[in-house]
Amino acid sequence: MAARLGELAGRFGLALSGDPDVVVSGVGTLQDAGPGELAFLANPRYRKLLADCRAGCVVLAAADAPACPVPALIADNPYASYARIAAVLHPPPVQAAGVHPSAVVEPGAVLGPGVSVGAQAYVGASVVLGAGVTIGPGCVLDGAIAVGEGSRLVARVTLVGSVTIGRRALIHPGAVLGADGFGLAPDRDGWVKVPQVGGVRVGDDVEIGANTTVDRGAIGDTVLADGVKLDNQIQIAHNVSIGRGSALAAQVGVSGSTRIGAGVLLAGQVGVAGHIEIADRVVVLGSTSVTNSIREAGEYASMLPGVRSTSWRRIVARLQRIEELHQRLKALEKTLDKTTRVTDPAGQAPDDGENT
Amino acid sequence: MAARLGELAGRFGLALSGDPDVVVSGVGTLQDAGPGELAFLANPRYRKLLADCRAGCVVLAAADAPACPVPALIADNPYASYARIAAVLHPPPVQAAGVHPSAVVEPGAVLGPGVSVGAQAYVGASVVLGAGVTIGPGCVLDGAIAVGEGSRLVARVTLVGSVTIGRRALIHPGAVLGADGFGLAPDRDGWVKVPQVGGVRVGDDVEIGANTTVDRGAIGDTVLADGVKLDNQIQIAHNVSIGRGSALAAQVGVSGSTRIGAGVLLAGQVGVAGHIEIADRVVVLGSTSVTNSIREAGEYASMLPGVRSTSWRRIVARLQRIEELHQRLKALEKTLDKTTRVTDPAGQAPDDGENT
Amino acid sequence: MAARLGELAGRFGLALSGDPDVVVSGVGTLQDAGPGELAFLANPRYRKLLADCRAGCVVLAAADAPACPVPALIADNPYASYARIAAVLHPPPVQAAGVHPSAVVEPGAVLGPGVSVGAQAYVGASVVLGAGVTIGPGCVLDGAIAVGEGSRLVARVTLVGSVTIGRRALIHPGAVLGADGFGLAPDRDGWVKVPQVGGVRVGDDVEIGANTTVDRGAIGDTVLADGVKLDNQIQIAHNVSIGRGSALAAQVGVSGSTRIGAGVLLAGQVGVAGHIEIADRVVVLGSTSVTNSIREAGEYASMLPGVRSTSWRRIVARLQRIEELHQRLKALEKTLDKTTRVTDPAGQAPDDGENT
Repeated sequence: MAARLGELAGRFGLALSGDPDVVVSGVGTLQDAGPGELAFLANPRYRKLLADCRAGCVVLAAADAPACPVPALIADNPYASYARIAAVLHPPPVQAAGVHPSAVVEPGAVLGPGVSVGAQAYVGASVVLGAGVTIGPGCVLDGAIAVGEGSRLVARVTLVGSVTIGRRALIHPGAVLGADGFGLAPDRDGWVKVPQVGGVRVGDDVEIGANTTVDRGAIGDTVLADGVKLDNQIQIAHNVSIGRGSALAAQVGVSGSTRIGAGVLLAGQVGVAGHIEIADRVVVLGSTSVTNSIREAGEYASMLPGVRSTSWRRIVARLQRIEELHQRLKALEKTLDKTTRVTDPAGQAPDDGENT
Repeated sequence: MAARLGELAGRFGLALSGDPDVVVSGVGTLQDAGPGELAFLANPRYRKLLADCRAGCVVLAAADAPACPVPALIADNPYASYARIAAVLHPPPVQAAGVHPSAVVEPGAVLGPGVSVGAQAYVGASVVLGAGVTIGPGCVLDGAIAVGEGSRLVARVTLVGSVTIGRRALIHPGAVLGADGFGLAPDRDGWVKVPQVGGVRVGDDVEIGANTTVDRGAIGDTVLADGVKLDNQIQIAHNVSIGRGSALAAQVGVSGSTRIGAGVLLAGQVGVAGHIEIADRVVVLGSTSVTNSIREAGEYASMLPGVRSTSWRRIVARLQRIEELHQRLKALEKTLDKTTRVTDPAGQAPDDGENT
Repeated sequence: MAARLGELAGRFGLALSGDPDVVVSGVGTLQDAGPGELAFLANPRYRKLLADCRAGCVVLAAADAPACPVPALIADNPYASYARIAAVLHPPPVQAAGVHPSAVVEPGAVLGPGVSVGAQAYVGASVVLGAGVTIGPGCVLDGAIAVGEGSRLVARVTLVGSVTIGRRALIHPGAVLGADGFGLAPDRDGWVKVPQVGGVRVGDDVEIGANTTVDRGAIGDTVLADGVKLDNQIQIAHNVSIGRGSALAAQVGVSGSTRIGAGVLLAGQVGVAGHIEIADRVVVLGSTSVTNSIREAGEYASMLPGVRSTSWRRIVARLQRIEELHQRLKALEKTLDKTTRVTDPAGQAPDDGENT
């Protein structure tokens, strides 16, 4: 979609430096955007690209405006303002309202006004879809399912068991919500399956990535609060709860019954143990294992950066004998203590505090 | 479903303390269960909740019965007995027998009595489904596939290539069994694909989680023995075999041709190298890398617990120079040895054994 | 399919030792193959199995031919030659050309000659399929999608947004290409979604594993070059590019905008940070975290091998206090320096170089 810069400035409350009648109809990078395209500058390390920029307009901070050779929209938070404008220029594809002839909607399902059910989709008898909900091609909704107004399941999403989703959710292909949690009771002859009878409750404005799985609770519910954002291939086990606005990157795994606070960030491949708590505003760096509750906001890590494998093998060999290193050090300390007692003319031992 | 306590006590061989005519019709937690609900107490740390419990009945060990203010079913293994009763109170949803009008069953497919094929499912010409098998909505079975009596594919499960599944399997949405293993032969001009012609063989009473993948063998089969339990997003590579009753938690990856014994437990995100063996009853803690065969039962780990990232960076910096630490220690030991030789009135060096 | 050894020797340029009229019709392992089956010997550690081999023929190196008790096809690269012959003996299943009656192909879609669209599949209005493309059962192609000649989407593959795939691709079930990248701009009230408007561009001869996800670019494209091979459950974030012939094993995650060179090998569960570069021919061992750019070919690692958990707990406790170890060592060095100054008859301090 095309828009005049003057119109965008007014709509998003931005100052405009340049001709309000210039039109942009898409986005591009600072480096590659052409005259009809909108770019943005948020990261100072790309400031050097500004001089040669040929975009139709750049969204940037006030401090960068003087150096901008093309029209600029000036924003306090250029990245967020860019994101809002980009959504106007590139609206998500609209799937026509109504039920595709190849879809199956069982009698009993309740579809609000403007609902779209795509090709090859299945909507079971106990499903309730709010106004304007889009169910993409190949989705399966089978169980006690409610999806709130304006939510979109892109394609081939599966909701089973008991799942409630809020408004304006965006769920990507391959995601599975409501499958059984991994509940097993050991018994003499092996495992007894523990029936999983809870549900999944998802708030408003939640995004869930491709092939991510969110299990139903064993007894109570698994809960994603408003504004939670999950990337691809994340595993959320039964009875986990994740607080408002927390964002988890790809391949994170959260074990059962763990409670994650609000505004938490977990980077890619983080693993979180079960039955623990993570406080609000905790940040965990990539590939870290969170094994105990984290009570205080702050940044946590346990990731080992890759090095040459020849060096690494030596490091691992030493690490596995770190106890020996410690014992040898202790022995030296003892010996030296004795030695200095003997040799120190004043007969004084070194301060204990330095040696322990 | 509702049941009288007396009936449950008889059916599961449990002692009942309280009125046999009390009826329960669902489960709840010890904390939240109301009068018509069944709770359980297995973990001693929840014993303190017993006093205020308002459940219709609690399944618990004999030792806890006196402190229980409501009727109790007394069990040797309260969790397993709870699981069995919960399955009576919450039977899995039943999909009506027969083929949904939107499903496709190719001529040639063999369907046993009572088979149910759900909406939008596809059953290819070489598929054989045993009595009472349930194929949920959106499943695809395409290839030489056999599924044993009473097994249930919840929804959107994919079986391709050559897959044999035993009785009473439960397979969750998004699981893929029988896709090609990752077989590549390096050649001058790049990779030559190695055809994957083996199958997947799954025993009885196996559960497979959402979005888990089990590849077909390169030549022979990939094998999951009876009672194997796989959580979500697990990757089982070609020609792996997993022994009876082993349970793998979410996001575990097992590389090709590895043999895992019986009764093995792998916690979340564990990675297992290829072409190795893991003995019976081995337990591997979360996020551990298993790089060599494990010949003895026991508990294994290599996971690093997350700490403040500022501390962690210092630890990593020191670890990467651990060789230097060792060298300095060695130098000190030498010097001290010399020093003590010089200064020790008796002229005796410290015992070598202490220093190496 | 069956073939005479003489015919295979001619077709693949191999020397034959033995009767050219022997027929093989399938493959088997060196250990288990019977008279009508073809085996191979590539890894010297299996050489000892040759003496008892009963295969119809073994593909092997010239050096192993004299010890082979059955007919042999002699190859410079036995594994690659085996792979090529196996593809003749076990051709992939052919799905009949044409559109299955249960599939939906929207008006506007362009299907080349010989295209096959399987049961329950969906092909949207803006899809272009080259000659001989096979779309397996349950696939969803919804968006601006182009698939090149001879490519095969096995089953239940999802392509959305904007995806271009080259010739002879092989994409396994559950793979999702073109879903939104994880783009979020933080703002006062939470996250603002950054529209993902780029595409996914895949070269020729690419293989993509089951349940792998490749996100569309935020602005430009996410790119997989010719000959890239991705195993199962891999996550490729937005704007990543992967060079020619690189192969990634299962459960690898690559974060946004990272550029991976040609001929790179990443083993299972490797995690790669965003906005970095990995040079050509880098090899990264399993479960390693790549946190910084790697500029030189070679092998890299940071994986910790699992050990007994009791030992591991002690190692971790020492590691977390490695700074203390260092401080104590430093203190010892100082003390000893002083001690030796005092006690050394020659008054000489130990060489600084040894102590730092």
